[in-house]
Amino acid sequence: MSKPIGDPARVVPDLVDALVRSDRRLARIDGHNVVLRVDPSPPADDRVALISGGGPGHEPAHAGYVGAGMLTAAVLGEVFTSPSVDAVLAAIRAVTGAAGCLLIVKNYTGDRLNFGLAAQIARAEGLNVEMVLVDDDAATGGGSRVGARGLAGTVLVHKIAGAAATTGATLAEAQAVAERAISGLSTMGVALSPCILPGAAAANFTLPRDEVEFGLGIHGEQGVSREGVAPVAELVGRLVNGILASGRVSVSGGPVVAMVNGWAGRPQWNWGWSPVRCSPGWSPLESKCAGWR
Amino acid sequence: MSKPIGDPARVVPDLVDALVRSDRRLARIDGHNVVLRVDPSPPADDRVALISGGGPGHEPAHAGYVGAGMLTAAVLGEVFTSPSVDAVLAAIRAVTGAAGCLLIVKNYTGDRLNFGLAAQIARAEGLNVEMVLVDDDAATGGGSRVGARGLAGTVLVHKIAGAAATTGATLAEAQAVAERAISGLSTMGVALSPCILPGAAAANFTLPRDEVEFGLGIHGEQGVSREGVAPVAELVGRLVNGILASGRVSVSGGPVVAMVNGWAGRPQWNWGWSPVRCSPGWSPLESKCAGWR
Repeated sequence: MSKPIGDPARVVPDLVDALVRSDRRLARIDGHNVVLRVDPSPPADDRVALISGGGPGHEPAHAGYVGAGMLTAAVLGEVFTSPSVDAVLAAIRAVTGAAGCLLIVKNYTGDRLNFGLAAQIARAEGLNVEMVLVDDDAATGGGSRVGARGLAGTVLVHKIAGAAATTGATLAEAQAVAERAISGLSTMGVALSPCILPGAAAANFTLPRDEVEFGLGIHGEQGVSREGVAPVAELVGRLVNGILASGRVSVSGGPVVAMVNGWAGRPQWNWGWSPVRCSPGWSPLESKCAGWR
Repeated sequence: MSKPIGDPARVVPDLVDALVRSDRRLARIDGHNVVLRVDPSPPADDRVALISGGGPGHEPAHAGYVGAGMLTAAVLGEVFTSPSVDAVLAAIRAVTGAAGCLLIVKNYTGDRLNFGLAAQIARAEGLNVEMVLVDDDAATGGGSRVGARGLAGTVLVHKIAGAAATTGATLAEAQAVAERAISGLSTMGVALSPCILPGAAAANFTLPRDEVEFGLGIHGEQGVSREGVAPVAELVGRLVNGILASGRVSVSGGPVVAMVNGWAGRPQWNWGWSPVRCSPGWSPLESKCAGWR
């Protein structure tokens, strides 16, 4: 699959430049691939700041969610690579006021390490920083030592914690709301083709045209099972079964938010060709986040 | 390029079902692939209704732009095929109140014919209906009898005419505003690969991996020139030159809205990897539509 890019070595700084040039409510921190909200400019002493990030390649997550009601800043590493401790620390220093700062981090060794170290340094400087780890990947980590990795459900944590911060939650309250959201999140992916990194000569794995890959990794790693291609309703059924098997989501426990995305490579409407068939009580694509308290 | 779909023969009704099931502010007209706004329900006697449509395959245009401030209804045919006169007429009858209705139609023989016939029948029934034709394709039709075809610039006409209708313009005013917008629109496309229709065995044309196709048609027809692949900034430069050559857009005549899209097959952020380099006075991605009057 081809994609129009510029210099493969500059895709991340070019991405940040393009974003901040296209929206005057955003800015970057000089010398870092950090996108900041500037309308209003942080730090806001009476509001908890929210920072997320990681290796880009999952756009619009996370830089595209910097703005009113969601993130205060996003920290980007190289493609599919954790940002440096320095970059995370620069973001924390830029946005953290008296109300403190919550780091929303996908559970991935590099991100845990670098966001965690930056948080420790910031605390030693007197800043009030907490971190939550999103581990919504239903295909990986069941019972493993490192746990499941973070996937697209992280965007709902941005939204829910963002609503909490906007309405004046304390850092402890925002953290508790985020953790409650995470405990009810489950995500599973399917791919019709592998991805190719900018500048790379080949994909991470090969996939025959008549097969699909379930549960692939967030960085394009080979998944957990390979099956024959099928109409989208069947593929969605298999995904929903995988999500239900995680035990985190129930079709009888009240409203469920179903978020469908295209791994950053597929437009929203390519999934819209066929309706997602949901059990009673599921509300596809309808946000029920208003009642977060 | 693969895409998850259901029954190829049902992609359009499935698309309409998915859309109206995912947003309670939308509804369909029974028996037709027509998406209607229902919040508030038309017809609104004091507001001009706006209808657009055509053959789907360009999502989110047009059904995705039905909503407050933009379209009142969208009429869909089969993929890349004009809707029937009956479907357009059903939409006109459903939304047209005393303030009348403006049809925003891409210049394409089938659409001109079917929207035009439906407008004539509606007028004979006493409804106040006008039609504008969008002809922004910079690559086709210069001096030809049928004129240039309509492309993605149509979305800006939805936005501008939608602002006019929302703020109480008469039908004649909304039509004049739309026509003024159209006269300043110019669009050019480039493709890294051809498209394949749902259920089709092959693409309309073949393209070597190291070439790109400029000025291809809105229904995936072969374009006007084929050139070597290049970094995105060069590709964008060639597109901007094609747009300027149309004579409709000037870099010295005041603010210009630059809208970048992915032919419905490429996510917005795949174009965000590299900033669009604009001449002074150009404001990429910033809407200047507020001053439409």
